[in-house]
Amino acid sequence: MAEIKPRVRYQIVPGKTAMIVVDMQNQFVKPGAPVEVPDARAIVPRLSKLLDQCRESRIPVIYICHMLRGDGSDAGRLADIHPTIACEGTGIVAGTENVEIYGELRPKPGDLLVKKLRYSAFHGTDLESILRTKGIDTLIIGGTVTNVCCDSTARDAFSRDYKLIFLSDGNASRGFPDMGWGAVSPEEAQRVALTVVAACFGQVASIEEVITQIRHASTIS
Amino acid sequence: MAEIKPRVRYQIVPGKTAMIVVDMQNQFVKPGAPVEVPDARAIVPRLSKLLDQCRESRIPVIYICHMLRGDGSDAGRLADIHPTIACEGTGIVAGTENVEIYGELRPKPGDLLVKKLRYSAFHGTDLESILRTKGIDTLIIGGTVTNVCCDSTARDAFSRDYKLIFLSDGNASRGFPDMGWGAVSPEEAQRVALTVVAACFGQVASIEEVITQIRHASTIS
Repeated sequence: MAEIKPRVRYQIVPGKTAMIVVDMQNQFVKPGAPVEVPDARAIVPRLSKLLDQCRESRIPVIYICHMLRGDGSDAGRLADIHPTIACEGTGIVAGTENVEIYGELRPKPGDLLVKKLRYSAFHGTDLESILRTKGIDTLIIGGTVTNVCCDSTARDAFSRDYKLIFLSDGNASRGFPDMGWGAVSPEEAQRVALTVVAACFGQVASIEEVITQIRHASTIS
Repeated sequence: MAEIKPRVRYQIVPGKTAMIVVDMQNQFVKPGAPVEVPDARAIVPRLSKLLDQCRESRIPVIYICHMLRGDGSDAGRLADIHPTIACEGTGIVAGTENVEIYGELRPKPGDLLVKKLRYSAFHGTDLESILRTKGIDTLIIGGTVTNVCCDSTARDAFSRDYKLIFLSDGNASRGFPDMGWGAVSPEEAQRVALTVVAACFGQVASIEEVITQIRHASTIS
């Protein structure tokens, strides 16, 4: 286990912290899914444990769901780069099984669900209104894909001055094909993403560390 | 020279395209600068050639300048992660030499300058109003640091449905220290960033390729 060297350590205050779960949908997590991220299934048991701790400590759990209308009208540049993304069967089309949260992580009563159109959970969504209404200033971010939707959400959280806690073992990467500079493995993608987030955007912490911190906060509050 | 394998190729139409130059300020580019990015000086001659081609072909050149008030009031989470960033001398403080565009890339008459507060050129700035007013739908992005301000700007451009052309040899990386997963060299940072952008956010192209495309577009228009 890597020993993380954080530039910043944020306190987790239950009334001011939310847990953001990015795109843990069948489209990405289910075996044989259209955009399968095998590493995303590996994080499910420990992420699930963290979500239960959040619920117990009254930290809102907010699921982000990437979904489109399916007629192409809202696909933007996604349609250029991933043309199958807006098609039924292969795409993240509202109302289909692909966009549902992966079974083992299914939301529980009291959890919230935010629909999004682009990689970032902030762009064109009601996430920020929810966070402001609840008085949230700290976000724990987990989910998939680390370098795409999780990283984009983390960057937008930073822009908006949220205190960011990005999970080192609760965000799952996938590999990237050779686009001209050699293929990138899931491990390398994860390593570089965590390093850039820790160096410039916020705190990177393990799930174990975050659970310990939440338990401690719950005891003293 | 790597042979780029783009998922998408965007046409450069002079009336609809803008050139975005991210953070090519003394703070990052000048020898001995507080956050010196040595690779940023290496891109100056070819970036300069591209900017001249843009000016000749009536593609607006928009310089993005990262700057803060200097009293900490607008620093947000930057103050947690880079505490010296808002201080005079070491920081990107408005009115100081640090925030000026590096000499050899100094703006020319007709160029525009947009001040920004965070890594992304879109957050809390007038960039999008300028782009809309001009009817721009395609952005060429160059500058520094690739994985931080350039990448954040590219992601926000994608969210907003701009056609993105990200320069493979016109964005400069710096290395990252070991934050827990080993140090990341400038070369590795650049390679992973270009791969992720090309796989998920837009077209990655070389300066030479873009200049050729602009010349061709100017001839037929």
